[in-house]
Amino acid sequence: MADYTYQYLNVTFPPEHQYVAHVEINRPDKLNAFIEAMWLELSAIFTRLSSDPSVRAIVLTGAGDRAFTAGLDVKAASEGLLSDSPGQPDLDSARRATPLRRHIASIQDCISSIEKCEKPVIVALHGIALGLAIDISVAADVRVCSADVRLAVKEVDIGLAADIGTLSRLPKVVGNFGWVKEVALTARVFGADEALRVGLVNRVFENKAETVRGALELAGLIATKSPVAVQGTKELLNYSRDHTVQEGLRYTTVWNSAMLQTKDVSAALLSGIQRRKPTFEKL
Amino acid sequence: MADYTYQYLNVTFPPEHQYVAHVEINRPDKLNAFIEAMWLELSAIFTRLSSDPSVRAIVLTGAGDRAFTAGLDVKAASEGLLSDSPGQPDLDSARRATPLRRHIASIQDCISSIEKCEKPVIVALHGIALGLAIDISVAADVRVCSADVRLAVKEVDIGLAADIGTLSRLPKVVGNFGWVKEVALTARVFGADEALRVGLVNRVFENKAETVRGALELAGLIATKSPVAVQGTKELLNYSRDHTVQEGLRYTTVWNSAMLQTKDVSAALLSGIQRRKPTFEKL
Amino acid sequence: MADYTYQYLNVTFPPEHQYVAHVEINRPDKLNAFIEAMWLELSAIFTRLSSDPSVRAIVLTGAGDRAFTAGLDVKAASEGLLSDSPGQPDLDSARRATPLRRHIASIQDCISSIEKCEKPVIVALHGIALGLAIDISVAADVRVCSADVRLAVKEVDIGLAADIGTLSRLPKVVGNFGWVKEVALTARVFGADEALRVGLVNRVFENKAETVRGALELAGLIATKSPVAVQGTKELLNYSRDHTVQEGLRYTTVWNSAMLQTKDVSAALLSGIQRRKPTFEKL
Amino acid sequence: MADYTYQYLNVTFPPEHQYVAHVEINRPDKLNAFIEAMWLELSAIFTRLSSDPSVRAIVLTGAGDRAFTAGLDVKAASEGLLSDSPGQPDLDSARRATPLRRHIASIQDCISSIEKCEKPVIVALHGIALGLAIDISVAADVRVCSADVRLAVKEVDIGLAADIGTLSRLPKVVGNFGWVKEVALTARVFGADEALRVGLVNRVFENKAETVRGALELAGLIATKSPVAVQGTKELLNYSRDHTVQEGLRYTTVWNSAMLQTKDVSAALLSGIQRRKPTFEKL
Amino acid sequence: MADYTYQYLNVTFPPEHQYVAHVEINRPDKLNAFIEAMWLELSAIFTRLSSDPSVRAIVLTGAGDRAFTAGLDVKAASEGLLSDSPGQPDLDSARRATPLRRHIASIQDCISSIEKCEKPVIVALHGIALGLAIDISVAADVRVCSADVRLAVKEVDIGLAADIGTLSRLPKVVGNFGWVKEVALTARVFGADEALRVGLVNRVFENKAETVRGALELAGLIATKSPVAVQGTKELLNYSRDHTVQEGLRYTTVWNSAMLQTKDVSAALLSGIQRRKPTFEKL
Amino acid sequence: MADYTYQYLNVTFPPEHQYVAHVEINRPDKLNAFIEAMWLELSAIFTRLSSDPSVRAIVLTGAGDRAFTAGLDVKAASEGLLSDSPGQPDLDSARRATPLRRHIASIQDCISSIEKCEKPVIVALHGIALGLAIDISVAADVRVCSADVRLAVKEVDIGLAADIGTLSRLPKVVGNFGWVKEVALTARVFGADEALRVGLVNRVFENKAETVRGALELAGLIATKSPVAVQGTKELLNYSRDHTVQEGLRYTTVWNSAMLQTKDVSAALLSGIQRRKPTFEKL
Repeated sequence: MADYTYQYLNVTFPPEHQYVAHVEINRPDKLNAFIEAMWLELSAIFTRLSSDPSVRAIVLTGAGDRAFTAGLDVKAASEGLLSDSPGQPDLDSARRATPLRRHIASIQDCISSIEKCEKPVIVALHGIALGLAIDISVAADVRVCSADVRLAVKEVDIGLAADIGTLSRLPKVVGNFGWVKEVALTARVFGADEALRVGLVNRVFENKAETVRGALELAGLIATKSPVAVQGTKELLNYSRDHTVQEGLRYTTVWNSAMLQTKDVSAALLSGIQRRKPTFEKL
Repeated sequence: MADYTYQYLNVTFPPEHQYVAHVEINRPDKLNAFIEAMWLELSAIFTRLSSDPSVRAIVLTGAGDRAFTAGLDVKAASEGLLSDSPGQPDLDSARRATPLRRHIASIQDCISSIEKCEKPVIVALHGIALGLAIDISVAADVRVCSADVRLAVKEVDIGLAADIGTLSRLPKVVGNFGWVKEVALTARVFGADEALRVGLVNRVFENKAETVRGALELAGLIATKSPVAVQGTKELLNYSRDHTVQEGLRYTTVWNSAMLQTKDVSAALLSGIQRRKPTFEKL
Repeated sequence: MADYTYQYLNVTFPPEHQYVAHVEINRPDKLNAFIEAMWLELSAIFTRLSSDPSVRAIVLTGAGDRAFTAGLDVKAASEGLLSDSPGQPDLDSARRATPLRRHIASIQDCISSIEKCEKPVIVALHGIALGLAIDISVAADVRVCSADVRLAVKEVDIGLAADIGTLSRLPKVVGNFGWVKEVALTARVFGADEALRVGLVNRVFENKAETVRGALELAGLIATKSPVAVQGTKELLNYSRDHTVQEGLRYTTVWNSAMLQTKDVSAALLSGIQRRKPTFEKL
Repeated sequence: MADYTYQYLNVTFPPEHQYVAHVEINRPDKLNAFIEAMWLELSAIFTRLSSDPSVRAIVLTGAGDRAFTAGLDVKAASEGLLSDSPGQPDLDSARRATPLRRHIASIQDCISSIEKCEKPVIVALHGIALGLAIDISVAADVRVCSADVRLAVKEVDIGLAADIGTLSRLPKVVGNFGWVKEVALTARVFGADEALRVGLVNRVFENKAETVRGALELAGLIATKSPVAVQGTKELLNYSRDHTVQEGLRYTTVWNSAMLQTKDVSAALLSGIQRRKPTFEKL
Repeated sequence: MADYTYQYLNVTFPPEHQYVAHVEINRPDKLNAFIEAMWLELSAIFTRLSSDPSVRAIVLTGAGDRAFTAGLDVKAASEGLLSDSPGQPDLDSARRATPLRRHIASIQDCISSIEKCEKPVIVALHGIALGLAIDISVAADVRVCSADVRLAVKEVDIGLAADIGTLSRLPKVVGNFGWVKEVALTARVFGADEALRVGLVNRVFENKAETVRGALELAGLIATKSPVAVQGTKELLNYSRDHTVQEGLRYTTVWNSAMLQTKDVSAALLSGIQRRKPTFEKL
Repeated sequence: MADYTYQYLNVTFPPEHQYVAHVEINRPDKLNAFIEAMWLELSAIFTRLSSDPSVRAIVLTGAGDRAFTAGLDVKAASEGLLSDSPGQPDLDSARRATPLRRHIASIQDCISSIEKCEKPVIVALHGIALGLAIDISVAADVRVCSADVRLAVKEVDIGLAADIGTLSRLPKVVGNFGWVKEVALTARVFGADEALRVGLVNRVFENKAETVRGALELAGLIATKSPVAVQGTKELLNYSRDHTVQEGLRYTTVWNSAMLQTKDVSAALLSGIQRRKPTFEKL
């Protein structure tokens, strides 16, 4: 197994679920709040997992009991983003806007590595899950949570419109635009039941341990399927979200014109007939 | 009434619901599994119904107690799609990809005839409803089901990403993208309650007979309305699904600039005043 | 405070909610049915509120106990839209279509002023809320309703496909496309519970008074937030609805490259630390 | 004939060309440089002409020998756009950005009234034609020029990217993207021959008088055609510029489903047979 | 060789150019004017050629010396399209619009079969080439013409906006939008030199015979290339025309992920090294 | 000045043109043919230049007299792309397609770094310029060439459809779609005059030295302008290429709402009045 050692995130491969990677945000003493090194690591990890043939599904969790993540580490962010650069006290607004634009884009790119990762990503939310927690969650494929979760699109409370993905992705994850508007405009905290009702999470578990276990089981189930089929399904669903039905159908024909030439189809059909579990080559 | 006699599908016109056509998939001994002749017939039927002035709403059901349809007839499909063509053992992958691409596109086109049909289509699901059952359902306008329905986006279990429409249309039918991802990535079976909860079906009936009756009643109700209004509503809703609000509004103005010149408006208004049921000319 | 006196709509500024405007459709003796002067006033009002620095959130209600609005005043509309222009008995259909197209577009533009208004708009629905009531509601950001509300996409019952926004916006507000199809194709009335279940409204209140009070409180809460953050959130959510995720992210970076240069961020952070309520300059 | 009296622009109806309107920018002592009142008038005029049944084609020119227009009146613009509002010395950049955004959008809307005008607009360029001259020209349908014209996308020379339409429309008017980049990045002046070679103008005339005469003749020719056909052609070409071929075809079917029901077709066919000039009713 | 016998169009396979099909519009006594049977045949032919492995490039010409085609046979069209259906004298405009919309769409589909044909299509224009001649030409890939050609977007002269493809495709074929507007709005005839200058044709030949010979030679050259490469190039260029650069790149990666797995690459490279002409298997 | 030392590309800063970077492809003994290390370097360089405040315009050339670049180094490419991975002789086509797709995407991303570079890029073409030479050129902003240049979209001659950008970008650079089709389908060589005529290059110089000098002078001119204006112009033109006019206008308003707050506007205006050359702060 390749070495996936990072400073702020743990990557492990739970032996009970073949082909599953478990990524853990690991700065629990700071409620897993994000500093720049962390989103760079997150991006590096998901980019590697995307083409790692030993990995077919990924679970993302937060270390500690209290928080999935409290979001951006405001202290660090306010230093980085908002301060006048010392020695450049009189930059004009256009000259301030340019590095801001590049900075936002670079954080977005890091979080988008979850969406671009070719393998399905399941997020297990618990405890405090604010701001960047939502940006991250909606870049993943499936979300489950613990009953104690406290979620919020928190950005308006610090004077800004969320800009790392929540406002672009949440309306496409949850089909209740009025609810999205309300939670984004008020920054109010909502819990597990509400998240389940509107469809932000697929399932609520009793506590964090059950949530992580449930997420790993779901990932484990997906990892038993043909990786050609699973990765194609993620790609085609994400493509379809952003295109017309006609465009989606056309892209699908081209995608599957190569992908149907896999041995996985006959392997799957044969093991179906033989009532045994199929095995699929690495992809 | 024109002759709608086909080999694998029945088309009838229930006398109790004027202007309603009932299309039945009729291969119950094979769980209504689809072979090529069937999707060609399906397409021919919906294309004809689309411009048949005697038809204003359509119900689609599966014959027999056990299944709406078990999906693609795997045996036939595996022969057609996946075998090396005999005598052409060494075609390269590009030369295999080309007929595959054409083949997928041609099945897609057949199923899309349901969406392109100018009249509303209501699908009544019951029993086994796997794979192609979902592709077909989401190409229709409204879905209802029996309490016994067993639904699944089954394709990953046979080693492929669904390519006949489910991945392109399901995320636009159901506003819960995490749930769509989960059922498409796991191929797990789900039932009537779950389908109702996420909005895949509009209503659950006790059994197949009630489901078909309910679907016909809904179709019957729609068929009493102005066909100009009904067909415009289907067209504009489908157009809006794939376009921005601004585009939708613009297309609507052009559409209605002709359609408002119908006598149906005055007919409807007048019968409203006179408290009698309006009748509308054929369209 | 500027003078907002209009003939058919009342605009007030409830003293208990700073920065909140309350717009009331005020033709209760006609069930608040709309004539042309009313949608022109509506548009003028929302266009002014959009750039009025004293306003940060808006509530829209209908006067009287019986109706939010019964929709288009059919009598007026049928005179305006559908009559042969006297003295021009033999205009051809193309020459009739052109003014019809302009007329639809001009009503659409008036209603779209709610969506284009830079401040969040909350609609409080009660009683009869038919046809244009839906067009108006879905152009707003959040909808709440009274338990007695009776909603319908009524247009097919008068022989036409809804053309003032419902068919373009409702499928993007409510993530249950089958339900949208059904209510638009049948014109059936539905109530508060169903509206809540499908996500058309965010909350149901006991009666009209509670509904208006609830809407004002929600508006009041939003009005306490940074207007830079709130107005950016509305803009970016509406933009994202109509664009791919990638487009949404790009637009967001450019938007926030200016908007992060606000003092509201430090004001919000500082008052967070000092545990007091922040105040924000006018925008 | 309705009264089209304005302060800064002249509107006349040359008797030798039935159904043609001639709009002239008339501030020759200032090289026809634009102040706010002028683009507001321009917009008002084109909006009125758009639905004036006596007008079927429009020519836009600049008064005086020296300039079509020298562009934005920099003095006025710098006062309006760029000054700190007196008494508001310390607005933050977000609060300055908001009125700037509204201001740019409002000028854009005024210039876009030329494109939105349902009748074809022919611009006759001569002399100095800088900055806003290009924004205006590319919003029109056809451009002709005098041999003495001196054109430039001048904005980078005053420290800004052109924002009133040139950068959005010029690449769609001229199919030479490298040339567009060069003239927009360098702000260099180019003349009639170059404009003709790249396709920015359709024809070069010897002097201003010939240019205006040529433009009026072209407008006169177009005005003899069926207004249903001509206005449809403008609409469908502009629509197609911004859409896929498939979208263009679909929109065309809906447009012409009404427009083919005109008497102009039989009028045109009949006069063709009878070898006489057809006349068409007002539209 | 399969039998390609049709009533109004000839299909031949010139022996001097392997893999080239020559389609000839063959109604010279009527200037090759189109009646419904002809566009149906045209569509049938191009649909068959699209998947005929013996064909790698196609040339389309018109029989006789006088015309490529004079366009729609106006007499037939006016009977079909515009007459009141006998016995239905009082259909309302909406009920007339519906069959008109279907009719336009069906002709569009027939002409679009040229664009959808997977093999490159070269049109050789000569003599009279009006109306539908342009619709057909711009649906093809390359156009060449004889010096005597007389082209026109003729539709406004018969009271309608061109609706079979010219207005959607011509602006994407020719990068001079002002010229497109002018010829479409005036219906004026233009010749070979102008067509060459604006880029509507790639080359002008002295007479019809040379034009056809030149077109066949170009087709013959293309037919010597790898059909995997050639058909991919047509598909990707047409796709790119209608999509952003980013979309084009993404689609290209998926397309070529299958297509690069062809033996044609090694065949081409090897014959390059060996300085001999490669041969490619059928596709 | 930062150190820009690379193995296969030279980066210099010509002292006669302030703020201009000169990037040279430097593998002249192999006709500057590209191996993987080279496109990785190219990408790294343009990514750095994009945010280097000392750089305002960039020129890209090829070392040596014989070639800008002969394109992909076929030997290396055929080893990398097309060989069976040793030890994996029987990967199925889906498993071969996946790394191919990633590989194409990664080369595309490298070349797209030229387009994404915030500073204008001018390519000076000379001698042999095949295949990847076109992909690179059309990702740049302006192209000039030497009279001796020999250009070709060469890919079909090695059995594949061009997939690194030519097919996506060339139709948007050159407004003559028939010509693009012809050169891409035939792979024929074309020269400087033809490139100028169709608009692929802006200008032809006598020889390589003049071409490079001309490119540097153009870059030098651009580098004297406001970097806020220049970089905004590149961004907005590229955005507009891929969007509707309406979208382009909207994006422009947001972009300039920050960018108009630059001191460059007053600096430019003031130096205009004072008739001296303005200086602009770094960006």
